Amino acid sequence: MTDLWSARFASGVQQMRSSAVRDLLKLTEQPDVISFGGGLPAPESFPIEELAAAAELALLENPAAALQYGLTEGYRPLREFLSLRMATLGIRVPVEQVMVTHGSQQGLDIAGRLLIDPGAPVAVEDPSYLGALGAWRSLQPSWVTLRLDRDGLDVDHLEQVLASGLRPRFLYVVSCFQNPTGVTLSPERRVRLLEIAARYGLVILEDDPYGELYFEGSRATPLAALDVQMHGELRHVIYLSTFSKQLAPGLRVGWMAAPPAYIARATILKQGLDLHSNSFAQRVAYLTCRDGLLDRHIPIIREVYRARRDVMLAALATEMPAGVNWTKPAGGMFCWLTLPDGLNATELLKRCLEQKVAFVPGAAFYADGGGEHTARLNFSFSSPDKIRAGVARMGAAFRGA
Amino acid sequence: MTDLWSARFASGVQQMRSSAVRDLLKLTEQPDVISFGGGLPAPESFPIEELAAAAELALLENPAAALQYGLTEGYRPLREFLSLRMATLGIRVPVEQVMVTHGSQQGLDIAGRLLIDPGAPVAVEDPSYLGALGAWRSLQPSWVTLRLDRDGLDVDHLEQVLASGLRPRFLYVVSCFQNPTGVTLSPERRVRLLEIAARYGLVILEDDPYGELYFEGSRATPLAALDVQMHGELRHVIYLSTFSKQLAPGLRVGWMAAPPAYIARATILKQGLDLHSNSFAQRVAYLTCRDGLLDRHIPIIREVYRARRDVMLAALATEMPAGVNWTKPAGGMFCWLTLPDGLNATELLKRCLEQKVAFVPGAAFYADGGGEHTARLNFSFSSPDKIRAGVARMGAAFRGA
Repeated sequence: MTDLWSARFASGVQQMRSSAVRDLLKLTEQPDVISFGGGLPAPESFPIEELAAAAELALLENPAAALQYGLTEGYRPLREFLSLRMATLGIRVPVEQVMVTHGSQQGLDIAGRLLIDPGAPVAVEDPSYLGALGAWRSLQPSWVTLRLDRDGLDVDHLEQVLASGLRPRFLYVVSCFQNPTGVTLSPERRVRLLEIAARYGLVILEDDPYGELYFEGSRATPLAALDVQMHGELRHVIYLSTFSKQLAPGLRVGWMAAPPAYIARATILKQGLDLHSNSFAQRVAYLTCRDGLLDRHIPIIREVYRARRDVMLAALATEMPAGVNWTKPAGGMFCWLTLPDGLNATELLKRCLEQKVAFVPGAAFYADGGGEHTARLNFSFSSPDKIRAGVARMGAAFRGA
Repeated sequence: MTDLWSARFASGVQQMRSSAVRDLLKLTEQPDVISFGGGLPAPESFPIEELAAAAELALLENPAAALQYGLTEGYRPLREFLSLRMATLGIRVPVEQVMVTHGSQQGLDIAGRLLIDPGAPVAVEDPSYLGALGAWRSLQPSWVTLRLDRDGLDVDHLEQVLASGLRPRFLYVVSCFQNPTGVTLSPERRVRLLEIAARYGLVILEDDPYGELYFEGSRATPLAALDVQMHGELRHVIYLSTFSKQLAPGLRVGWMAAPPAYIARATILKQGLDLHSNSFAQRVAYLTCRDGLLDRHIPIIREVYRARRDVMLAALATEMPAGVNWTKPAGGMFCWLTLPDGLNATELLKRCLEQKVAFVPGAAFYADGGGEHTARLNFSFSSPDKIRAGVARMGAAFRGA
C-alpha cells in the first residue's frame, strides 16, 4: 500500500502542511482548555432566532428552489443585496461583478487557482493570514514578503520591490484589523497603495472579513472603494468579504467583487470546484439581510468584542512579564504578542497547554519563516471571565519559562 | 484594463471552458422551455417537511455549534452515520477514512488537485461526466479515453492501455447509471477491474451519486466494496457519493471514503479550499438520516424516476425518426441518444430551442473531442406530461432537420 500511494501525489502536494489553527481547533473541543487559538466568533453573538426564522421562511416560500441546484454565481437576490450594500461603502459594482463563495476562504483558493503558476511571485504581508498561505502553498508560488507595522502594510517597501522590477501576480492584503496582527492600513497608505497599483499595474487581493467590527472611529474605506473612486470602476482590486463574522461562519457564505475579466473566469472555475454554494444557506443569509438584521446586529457584535478586547488588554498589562509587547487593535478579533528575543512561542505553547490555555504560535503566519517569538491571541470567542483566567494562566506559564 | 488583466492568469486558466450544462441551467429559468438539459432531481421528491423539521431541530439542539466553524473532516456524527451506511454496501471503512465534501463535485476537484500534474495521464470513460472533465481541465492532464458500451467501461481496453506501459494517475469511473450514458458497469467487469487495479497498481476514482436509484434488480456492489473484500481494507478506490440525489442538492453535502494516505492530504487541502463544509447543512442532513428517512424516502424517488424514464422511453419510441438510437437505463437520471451519422446535435439543439425544448449535446462529455452525433437527456426533472410534450417537440425538430 505504501508503494501504491507514496509516489502518487502531484508535485505541489508535498508543500502542503497541516495548519496550527486546525490542530488547535481540535484542542478547543476539550472543555477545560481556554483557547485563544481559533479565530472563532462569539457564539453568544449568533442571531439564532432570526436565522431560525429565516430557515423556516426559506423552506416555506420556495422550498423547491431552496433545495435545488442553483447558479454558480450565487442566488441573485443575495447578490443584488450585496451590490447595494457594498455601494454604501463606495464599492460601486453591478450585480454581475458579485459572486457568492463558500466562505471567503474559497475566494482565496479561487485567487490562487486563477493567478498563481509555480514559481510566480506573490506579495504578502509578513506576517499574513495562514489560511491564505496554506491555500496557496501547493500552487508553489515564490513569496514576496512585505514589512508590516502599526499602520499596516509598509507601502514604501512595496514600492521598492516593484521599482526593482519584480512583478507579483497580486498583492494580498487584509486591510482592516489584520489577521494575525490586528493592525489596520492607514487612510494615507490606502491612497498611496492605489496610486502604486495604478503606476505598476498591480492587482490587489483585498480580504476584508473584519472591516465592520470597528470599536472606535468609523468604518475604514475599503481599497476597492478607492479603486472605484480613482478609475470609475473596479480595476485593480479583487474584494473578498463574508457573513462569517456578521452572522455566523457555519453558513459558509462569503462573496467577492472583482473586475469582469476575473469574475468570468472565477465563475467557470467555481463550477468545477463545487458547482455552486449551498442554496439553502444563501437564502437564509438573504432573508435575514432583507429584514435589515445586519444594521441592528453588527453594533451588538462590536460591543461584545470591544468589551472582550478591553478585558484582554487589561489582563495582558497585569499578567505579562516585562519584555512582552502586544498590539492594541481598534477592532476585529486578534491581538498580536511579541516576546523578548530568545523566547520561542511554540515552546511556550507547550507550557501553556499544561496550564490548559492555548494560542497560535506566530511562526505559522510567516510565509518564508521567522516569527518564532510571536503569537496570535483571539479575544472574540471566550467570555470576559475566561479571558481573564486564560491570560493569568499564560502569565504563570510565561514566568515559569 | 485589458492590459492589466489579459496576461495575468495562470497557464491552466486558458484551458477552462464554460460548460454546456451551466449555460443550459440558465435556459431552464425560462418557464416555457422544457429542459432535459440539467441533471436536476425532481423537486417534487424533496423531503421538504423532514428537512424543515431537521433545520428547526439543529438550531434548537445546539445552535452555537450548528452556526460555528467546524472541523475540516466534517461533522463527526454524520461521518459515523456514513461509515455505518457504507458498511451495509460492503464498504467497511472506519470513520477516520470518511470526509464530508461540499457536494461530490468538491471530491472531484480534490482528486484533481491531489493527483494531477500538468501532462500527467488521467483515464476517463469516453464519454464521461463533463463536470469532472471541467474540474480537471485547468490542471492540464493528458487524457486517456477509454471505450464504453452497454456494460459500462470496456475493461479490455483499459488493460491494453496499461499493458502498453501507460500509467494513469487514476481511472475515473461513474460506476452506476453513468453520467451521461445511463449505463452500469456489469458485475463481471467490476471484479475484473479490481483485479486489473491490483495487478497494475491502479487508483480508481469511483463516483457513485446514482447507485441507490435503481429501478430494477438490486443495488450494484460498489467497486469500493470489492476493493475492501479483496484487500481487507480500502486500497485502490477513492469513493465519492452525495446526498444531492437522495435528499436535495441545494444542501451541498457529499462525502468521500478513501485510503488513509489520501484522506490525510485531502483534509489538509480542503482546509485551504473552504475550511470546512457548512455546519448547518451537515446537521440538517444528519438529523434526517438519524431519523431513518433515507430508507423510507429513496424508494419514493425510485418510483418517481422509474415512471418518468418509462414515459421518456415510450415517447422516444413514438417520436424519434428512424436511425436515432438511445440507451435504456435501469436507473439514475439520464438517457443517451445516438443520432444517424452526419447529424450534429448542437445544430439540432438550436432547432429544438426554437421549439422550446432543450438537451445537452453530447460532444461536451468527450474529453478529447468527438461525439457530435450524441445527446444527453435527463428524465428525472420534468413531469411525465412535460416529458411527453418535450419529446414530441424534439421529434418535430428532428424531423425538420
